[in-house]
Amino acid sequence: MCRGDDPNCTHFAEHRRRFLGDLAPERRAFLKSGFVATGGAAAMAAGGLSLVGPALAQTSAKGIRQTAHYHLPATAETVHWGYFSKLLKPQVEIASGDYVTIETLTHHANDDAERMVTGDPGAESVFLWTKDKKGVARRGAGPETGPLGPGGGLGVHICTGPVAIRGAEPGDVLEVRILDVAPRPCANPAFKGRSFGSNAAAWWGYHYKDMITGDRAREVITIYEVDASGARDWAKAVYNFRWPGVTDPFGVAHPTIDYPGIPVDHTKTQRNFDVLKGVRVPIRPHFGTMGLAPKEADMVNSIPPSYTGGNIDNWRIGKGATMYYPVAVPGALFSVGDPHASQGDSELCGTAIECSLTGTFQFVLHKKADLAGTALETLDFPMIETSEDWVLSGFSYPNYLADLGPDAQNEIFSKSSIDLAMRDAFRKMRSFLMQAKGLTEDEAISLMSIAVDFGITQVVDGNWGVHAIVKKAIFADRPA
Amino acid sequence: MCRGDDPNCTHFAEHRRRFLGDLAPERRAFLKSGFVATGGAAAMAAGGLSLVGPALAQTSAKGIRQTAHYHLPATAETVHWGYFSKLLKPQVEIASGDYVTIETLTHHANDDAERMVTGDPGAESVFLWTKDKKGVARRGAGPETGPLGPGGGLGVHICTGPVAIRGAEPGDVLEVRILDVAPRPCANPAFKGRSFGSNAAAWWGYHYKDMITGDRAREVITIYEVDASGARDWAKAVYNFRWPGVTDPFGVAHPTIDYPGIPVDHTKTQRNFDVLKGVRVPIRPHFGTMGLAPKEADMVNSIPPSYTGGNIDNWRIGKGATMYYPVAVPGALFSVGDPHASQGDSELCGTAIECSLTGTFQFVLHKKADLAGTALETLDFPMIETSEDWVLSGFSYPNYLADLGPDAQNEIFSKSSIDLAMRDAFRKMRSFLMQAKGLTEDEAISLMSIAVDFGITQVVDGNWGVHAIVKKAIFADRPA
Repeated sequence: MCRGDDPNCTHFAEHRRRFLGDLAPERRAFLKSGFVATGGAAAMAAGGLSLVGPALAQTSAKGIRQTAHYHLPATAETVHWGYFSKLLKPQVEIASGDYVTIETLTHHANDDAERMVTGDPGAESVFLWTKDKKGVARRGAGPETGPLGPGGGLGVHICTGPVAIRGAEPGDVLEVRILDVAPRPCANPAFKGRSFGSNAAAWWGYHYKDMITGDRAREVITIYEVDASGARDWAKAVYNFRWPGVTDPFGVAHPTIDYPGIPVDHTKTQRNFDVLKGVRVPIRPHFGTMGLAPKEADMVNSIPPSYTGGNIDNWRIGKGATMYYPVAVPGALFSVGDPHASQGDSELCGTAIECSLTGTFQFVLHKKADLAGTALETLDFPMIETSEDWVLSGFSYPNYLADLGPDAQNEIFSKSSIDLAMRDAFRKMRSFLMQAKGLTEDEAISLMSIAVDFGITQVVDGNWGVHAIVKKAIFADRPA
Repeated sequence: MCRGDDPNCTHFAEHRRRFLGDLAPERRAFLKSGFVATGGAAAMAAGGLSLVGPALAQTSAKGIRQTAHYHLPATAETVHWGYFSKLLKPQVEIASGDYVTIETLTHHANDDAERMVTGDPGAESVFLWTKDKKGVARRGAGPETGPLGPGGGLGVHICTGPVAIRGAEPGDVLEVRILDVAPRPCANPAFKGRSFGSNAAAWWGYHYKDMITGDRAREVITIYEVDASGARDWAKAVYNFRWPGVTDPFGVAHPTIDYPGIPVDHTKTQRNFDVLKGVRVPIRPHFGTMGLAPKEADMVNSIPPSYTGGNIDNWRIGKGATMYYPVAVPGALFSVGDPHASQGDSELCGTAIECSLTGTFQFVLHKKADLAGTALETLDFPMIETSEDWVLSGFSYPNYLADLGPDAQNEIFSKSSIDLAMRDAFRKMRSFLMQAKGLTEDEAISLMSIAVDFGITQVVDGNWGVHAIVKKAIFADRPA
């Protein structure tokens, strides 16, 4: 059933009525006046996820306001590959309340270019790499020159953006609503109507040094098919192959997957089509990497997540979810990439089903001055809201760039643990329950033990993650 | 909606039809002939959760067989408090396929005797403690004499049993189906129709040395009310109080909660009834501690979970779930206790809503000789099956009694980590997918990254836990 957000649903009216009835009191209490002050009502009038409750409807007296809807394609010109940076020039500058449809490309598309690049002008421009030309030269936050290539592969995600939000300043909170997510259809006529993704069991995976069969040091890539129409809610494996060692078009050898976007020549692989027969993988389309530019460094590796979001790799960041980020630099500078068709909690082998997606987002800016007394007042980490839950992201180091000193971007890869991330998730959930829900510490501690679920987000992104989930319905009767 | 297991449901026939249709192929493949060989069909005829599929129905040709249903009350004579032991005399000996309804008592009932003990003859017999008499003297696996009392509080759970299964031998697998679970109604007329539970934020909680308000070293107990009729699916807080330091009836002072079942005198507490107002805690009735006697030691502290189960503290071990345990000693010796009305993944503060429950269980013995080629062949840990999922229990030390040497029962409390438990959960899930589902290691690794969720079971039981969850529906189309 739709959640009251799909006008094409045959029971849309009824579902929307229920949705509003269920959630309105909760949301009203949470957002309080900050929302009203920042274009929220106008955003709602335009059909976003938010809810017109009595406290908000009165703002219509302020008159009609128009919001804009932009489309940001993914091309060699609109993406930055493998890093966040406060120095990037925005692709588009928008107002609070505006919408942007953003195309994202998986950085694993070249694992099978025939299925994920060929015939797709945007993807072709990004993945272009001949002996003479490279569509996007820099891949990663590393030095411009290095043995592997510009950027050094120190960061791997193709990020579309940034989107600048007019008036955003450090200390504000940016709310990003994911209104829709759809797989990018294969543009190759040979595979019409389908989409594909790649799962790489790679050297950075949790399993890599702990295998029990065959050759120990192998990387295996599995190609998955996803239904582009969205009618089928599961993916299936097409084939797998062992990373054969690839020499890139500039002549650099890559015995392992040490630089993103290397074109794989399938005349040199052995493809095994007898793989995961009869296995249906439930799809959970979401964006692995999504967030704002941090202030601590000019070039930030896209792999470790941090306080401004980034590579959180939580599958709950999909359609219907809303993110709240602390703004660290002027304009906020939002970017999104690392699209996933599905991922399990832990992202064990190092990747998800990496599959290009297009999302439609609405951006609502909450100014610092309006946050006093709201749940967002002390927000210093990326918070997820789904239709049912609040999901708080704990990391081994909440702000590793600040926590680990000048060499943080290297140190983080050897210092993470789930135990550290659990401690952070515990502290964040306690603060949330005290700050946003007005509980005492004793009340918060008791509730966390009996009604909050802690899960392992990922153990492969340098800064490992644990999330804490609490159901919104728990508070439905609580006075705001 | 009922899952096809509640004959009183008005749509029982339809729900059961769907349930059979959905799960039959999966279960048939899983259990194979081992199930048929061990009374499974007879059990099903008696109305258990199992499924009459075509491959099983034929066994009815073997003729009618009668199963027995026992009732095991919880009294001072039928419980052992705080330990598992292979030396215990069984309370009842049953055949494979038989049913037992077992009463369990929370060891926290004396936190509020008025609500959880008074008027209840079974609970009164267990909790009896005057200056002259103690209903159950030994509480824990420690020495008979010690400063805190017999057993030393080295183990805290009131376990009902053991139940011996005729013919069970080491190497077999015991399947335990939880057919029904209900709260134990309060027997005090003043609180008719209600049930109560206690949540202790105690010194062994994850939060204890990491508090941010008030006095640092405090233990806080919150009493919750649960609807005894089952009509309401949420619990609410009644009041909380700080552990005041209690001197037990024998004159021993307990400044912290260092021995289970100490009667709290509420003339010496300050009860705060203004607690968690408007908060509805979803209930998840389950048994925190449930399992078989291990072979490694005569007296085993009930707190750390291990390969024969015990204090797993996973809220998924509730109605409709099935457990599979490796049998370690003759007769298997099943005991159950530590009933919970609700718990979150992590059991953060050290306890759940500790609330007396009664369960109805069916026991099916799978003989070692019948396990070849089935998913149970190599089972060496407690596995959970729910209506939708397989849930595998990883621990910091899979068999800590063997892994940590002669001082294991002390060592385990200082050596646990989530990181270790994650490693174990990963390995167990990989083995399960390879053994039970016939995947190659490469297939298993890929699937684990995209479709298996790892969560934090508990961080308070000495041997910390991480569980791995995979949906059964993923394999619905896979040839057995």
